[in-house]
Amino acid sequence: MGWVVDEEALERLAIGAGILGTGGGGNPYLGKLMARQFVREGARIAVVGAEEVPDDALVVSVGGMGSPTVSVERPRRADESVRAMRALERHLGRQFTHLAPSEIGGSNSTVPMVVAAQTGLPVIDGDGMGRAFPELQMETYAIDGVRPTPGALSNHHGHVVLFDRIDDATTLERYARAVTIQMGGAAGYAFPVMSGTELKRSVIRGTLSLAIRLGGTILAARERHEDVIAAALGVTGGRRLFTGKVVDVERRLLGGFARGKVTIEGLGADEGRTVAIDFQNENLIARTADGEVLAVVPDLICLVDAETAEPVTTELVRYGLRVAVLGIPAPAALRTETALRVIGPAAFGYGDVEYRALPGVYGKGQPTSRGARP
Amino acid sequence: MGWVVDEEALERLAIGAGILGTGGGGNPYLGKLMARQFVREGARIAVVGAEEVPDDALVVSVGGMGSPTVSVERPRRADESVRAMRALERHLGRQFTHLAPSEIGGSNSTVPMVVAAQTGLPVIDGDGMGRAFPELQMETYAIDGVRPTPGALSNHHGHVVLFDRIDDATTLERYARAVTIQMGGAAGYAFPVMSGTELKRSVIRGTLSLAIRLGGTILAARERHEDVIAAALGVTGGRRLFTGKVVDVERRLLGGFARGKVTIEGLGADEGRTVAIDFQNENLIARTADGEVLAVVPDLICLVDAETAEPVTTELVRYGLRVAVLGIPAPAALRTETALRVIGPAAFGYGDVEYRALPGVYGKGQPTSRGARP
Repeated sequence: MGWVVDEEALERLAIGAGILGTGGGGNPYLGKLMARQFVREGARIAVVGAEEVPDDALVVSVGGMGSPTVSVERPRRADESVRAMRALERHLGRQFTHLAPSEIGGSNSTVPMVVAAQTGLPVIDGDGMGRAFPELQMETYAIDGVRPTPGALSNHHGHVVLFDRIDDATTLERYARAVTIQMGGAAGYAFPVMSGTELKRSVIRGTLSLAIRLGGTILAARERHEDVIAAALGVTGGRRLFTGKVVDVERRLLGGFARGKVTIEGLGADEGRTVAIDFQNENLIARTADGEVLAVVPDLICLVDAETAEPVTTELVRYGLRVAVLGIPAPAALRTETALRVIGPAAFGYGDVEYRALPGVYGKGQPTSRGARP
Repeated sequence: MGWVVDEEALERLAIGAGILGTGGGGNPYLGKLMARQFVREGARIAVVGAEEVPDDALVVSVGGMGSPTVSVERPRRADESVRAMRALERHLGRQFTHLAPSEIGGSNSTVPMVVAAQTGLPVIDGDGMGRAFPELQMETYAIDGVRPTPGALSNHHGHVVLFDRIDDATTLERYARAVTIQMGGAAGYAFPVMSGTELKRSVIRGTLSLAIRLGGTILAARERHEDVIAAALGVTGGRRLFTGKVVDVERRLLGGFARGKVTIEGLGADEGRTVAIDFQNENLIARTADGEVLAVVPDLICLVDAETAEPVTTELVRYGLRVAVLGIPAPAALRTETALRVIGPAAFGYGDVEYRALPGVYGKGQPTSRGARP
């Protein structure tokens, strides 16, 4: 029971994925434009639910690696991840049957669309993060023990770097990041490779349709002049943590990551309070001036424009913006003890912060398990 | 008309390759020990002259990449380059027929012996540098247009990184160096791949037998209490530039390279004069206090112990050593206009120094073209 990502769905996806990027994950706008161009030229982007993937399918996850700041300045070519995928097929001597999104938040939400449009392969309605994270070992595929290699990187020159016989995703992350920096800061990747069985054991289901529905709901609420924030939360679950004005942004590039802090002064009901959000590409922790933790990774901390719910990414956030801070509970797969070791507060340097889950259910407004058309 | 590298030849090779390393290239001692162990266990290291390689041979160059300083602290495993070679064979779906040394100076002189001992493949009597250089694009294989990829790196964990569709060796150098650093500072490599025709067009002939004969001549001269320096120069060609005492060594690790300067105060006939030698892994330029250039890259500037002609590498040179500075003319292939653009003074940051060849002929004491037994 597949469905198709058309132009309208791409518009919605870009907005929804921007919010689920929790400030990072790169800008989905360029990928949307590329995918749209292919769709206009007649390409078909087919989506299937995870349950429809045969056990013996040969699935590959595709995306882009690199600093979001660099990506805005020099858009990726549309075919870098395709080249990586084709190189990996040549290396394996086998052809892939399905594409698995690695990261539904940010630009990596649209990369599989671009690859699907060029290759005709179906995209699975799901991903390995349910949001955005900065590193490969933070995918559920890795957390659940899928072997990280063989895998491939390619860049806009068509250079190919293949990785093999590497057992842990953290090592692959280091190697691939080092090559990406040498490639000029941006590359397309194809890894990990999974069987259908492995995919179904590990993928976070329904996140592609969730992102599309989230974007569609926001667009509809804007048109009807309804409360866009409430409409968005009606899809994702979670709650509004804070509303205010950005009064300070610290930002620096370090080791290929954008790191920094956004400070927001409360408005309306939050008048008189201040919240600071630390980010490393993605927003990691939101704390009040007196140290109360409003939300912490892996839960989603999303900055959106207070009027339009347009996502505000860490590379574009600036003084004076009026924003709402949304707290969205992470998917259940990210809240297990095993997962928290890799993507909990301590993994990001907040060893003194205990993870306490936000109330609510991720993607509460949707049937996540069947990959139904959004 | 091949010949065999036996235990005695390995001893000689380590000394000769140490001198041809011109201060860098890593220490051939550990490779010698590994190769010797295999020989003692019955392995046979066969050498063939370049002319004996069929046009349709599938040749691969093997060696180790990494900082010499790291190599001394943590010896490479004997099988890293073998793993890289085997990974490349799997990737190509073809098997190699011959091994080509990439660099006769330093530790990369013995890596092909270790690989030959484990695989049974013959080693070609020649290399791509005729000395040691810090980077891949400085091989005659690259200078003569051999495609740098496909190629492979492997480390002591057995991790494999393959490179493909990269057209220039400088780019491969950057990618491979970045991965090597992430691999812990040392890796074995297998690249470039060449046909027999390409090999014969590009290899510097007879350098393996030259290094062995150089080491053998020095050992014999020591035994007979003859002038070891004169004996060494009788094999390599070139002349003694300076004799003195090391009075200062500046050394730092930068970007994976050992960089610095050695200052030597003259003794005997050179009393009252001072010479400074800049190095980046290898010795690059020898200049007197008043700026006269005694020798400059690509000519070989070799520090040896004044009494024994034992090579003194940049990582081991220290205050108080009495050394002779030898100037050995570079092989003709390194002195062409094309080659000088890649390995002349300007390529190493000495844009104001014009290359003027040392008088004499490299390897003057030997028939270099036939790969005869040394």
